Amino acid sequence: MGCTRLVVFFQMEERIIQYISKYVSLDQHEVQEILKELEFRTFKKGTHLIAEGQVSKECYFNIQGLVRQYEVVEGDDKTTDFYAEGDAIVAFESGAHQLPCTFNWVCEEDTTLVIGRLDGIRDAYARNPKLEKMSGLFITGEFGRYQTRASRFITMTPEQRYLEFLEKRPHVINRIRQYHLASYLGIKPETLSRIRRKISRKF
Amino acid sequence: MGCTRLVVFFQMEERIIQYISKYVSLDQHEVQEILKELEFRTFKKGTHLIAEGQVSKECYFNIQGLVRQYEVVEGDDKTTDFYAEGDAIVAFESGAHQLPCTFNWVCEEDTTLVIGRLDGIRDAYARNPKLEKMSGLFITGEFGRYQTRASRFITMTPEQRYLEFLEKRPHVINRIRQYHLASYLGIKPETLSRIRRKISRKF
Repeated sequence: MGCTRLVVFFQMEERIIQYISKYVSLDQHEVQEILKELEFRTFKKGTHLIAEGQVSKECYFNIQGLVRQYEVVEGDDKTTDFYAEGDAIVAFESGAHQLPCTFNWVCEEDTTLVIGRLDGIRDAYARNPKLEKMSGLFITGEFGRYQTRASRFITMTPEQRYLEFLEKRPHVINRIRQYHLASYLGIKPETLSRIRRKISRKF
Repeated sequence: MGCTRLVVFFQMEERIIQYISKYVSLDQHEVQEILKELEFRTFKKGTHLIAEGQVSKECYFNIQGLVRQYEVVEGDDKTTDFYAEGDAIVAFESGAHQLPCTFNWVCEEDTTLVIGRLDGIRDAYARNPKLEKMSGLFITGEFGRYQTRASRFITMTPEQRYLEFLEKRPHVINRIRQYHLASYLGIKPETLSRIRRKISRKF
């Protein structure tokens, strides 16, 4: 491994430990054991992590980069989620029941991910109980995000959904195409343009 | 406890064990231990299990009955979920982070629920590892339901969402008010009526 790649490697390791430490406290020995356990890799922009019809065998945790989830409906690309730094990327139905996945995950930037292999995760937890505890706490939070998101389509207007996205995910907004964002918000690109013009007039 | 109530009690116990046995196999001793652990109660129609602004301290598993989740937005009652037999009822964000809940849960029928107290759940799992295993498997499936549901607002038309509800939740459709269903599907009651007329003409 070259010197620059080695520096990047240690930066990534440090970032992973920072994320885990938000949920559980780790001593030096536990840090070493967890780093031995975790596998991470950088995927080139444009790489598909999963495609419609495949069965999910891995889950991911985004350390750096951006992954977009989409489905193709009657020829149209529909964006159904974005996963940025700190987000878990899990196909729950496909992974839990070994069913064909209904969506695609594509890296919109060069993206560094921690890789969790679903068939080995129980063993990894047995070796590192704090990893299991952290995952439980983390996943419960992710659950909340999905529960809230489904409700937003009922309780909020498209403009409110856009403003919430601006507020909660400011680190994502300038890295995505406008028609992907419109699709994610459940509106037409023209409607998103109108909302943005209306808001910009207010400030 | 009177004789009829005792019969109902045992029917409920049997139903709980049937649900758990879908996920993990239990021997007679484990059945007894789990039944000692579980608390269930019947709530009268109209009872609120939680109201906006309260912090969630309990989660539930629906054995019999129907619970509706709603938010009041500018005076309007917006239905954001239904929980029927076999559904878990959990306020993930409020429960995990002890934040005020943003929605209400109301029993639309007399409803019998297993009650899980969030502060005691770790101890219950330690005493009954199979209960923990079953919860993990079950909750992962619930996750899938939320992930899929948020996407449906992007990838499906209202008519397709209605047809999917008919197909996946036929045991719920005749027990709910039409304007609650319209709200849940993210459409106006008039639109739901139009969709239903259109579909009935096809058959």
